[in-house]
Amino acid sequence: MNCKSIVIVSLVGMVSFSCSQQHASVNETAIFEKGEKITNNNFTGSAWLKNLLEADSVNQTSVGSVTFEPGARTNWHSHPAGQIILALDGIGYYQEKGSPKITVKKGDAIKCPPDVPHWHGASADTKFVQVAITGREKGETVWLEPVTDEEYNQ
Amino acid sequence: MNCKSIVIVSLVGMVSFSCSQQHASVNETAIFEKGEKITNNNFTGSAWLKNLLEADSVNQTSVGSVTFEPGARTNWHSHPAGQIILALDGIGYYQEKGSPKITVKKGDAIKCPPDVPHWHGASADTKFVQVAITGREKGETVWLEPVTDEEYNQ
Repeated sequence: MNCKSIVIVSLVGMVSFSCSQQHASVNETAIFEKGEKITNNNFTGSAWLKNLLEADSVNQTSVGSVTFEPGARTNWHSHPAGQIILALDGIGYYQEKGSPKITVKKGDAIKCPPDVPHWHGASADTKFVQVAITGREKGETVWLEPVTDEEYNQ
Repeated sequence: MNCKSIVIVSLVGMVSFSCSQQHASVNETAIFEKGEKITNNNFTGSAWLKNLLEADSVNQTSVGSVTFEPGARTNWHSHPAGQIILALDGIGYYQEKGSPKITVKKGDAIKCPPDVPHWHGASADTKFVQVAITGREKGETVWLEPVTDEEYNQ
């Protein structure tokens, strides 16, 4: 093997090794399964839900992981017992009725007060992965109208 | 630069680049800050707590991220309104009084029933990162005796 060959082998090794590392890194960030694509009319765009824990007699709190593709969001909605959102990955938006939209990112934690209409979803360019922790002891989610593009882009 | 020098430079570049990738990978898995080292007597070994949300009048549920070093664990304890544990990273143990110890890993979700004594912590060789979601509406955590090495290793 001459000098040129050795350098090429080294460079190929470097690139393929760094690629495998990059791949490992991406996989490691997905803590929960993506779950099933949401097909009801309570969402705009593409979003996936993995139910982690159902509300039951042991604990009336449900937990689910939601993955929003860029631009995807919930309709406006409210929860009789409120909700907690933990941002696991990406960049998303959260807005309560009457307040400005805020940007949320990996590591953020939000309390949605009971009965306050709000929406959440991905930013326009980046997906958003969140865990939703929802008390069911006072009733189910109240779904409202879709978030318009004007509201989303405001 | 001679042939030997070029090969050495390539190899050093390969190693340092792969190391920086590895570093990025490790950072990316830490969703929440590690927080403060726990110094009370309710834990064995080294554990860190980052409070994410306190219980308040909006929602009487608290959320915290706990990082257990290998071998670290809580004392036996119970929660009047139960608890939900989400395993974010590593390998841990969970045991309810009277049941065998189970192994939990990244992506697992557990409901601890109200008033059932239990403990959780890291496995002997691998750290464990969890989010604890605790209803406070029926009172605070009841702390009990430490988990002995015999119980831990069973």
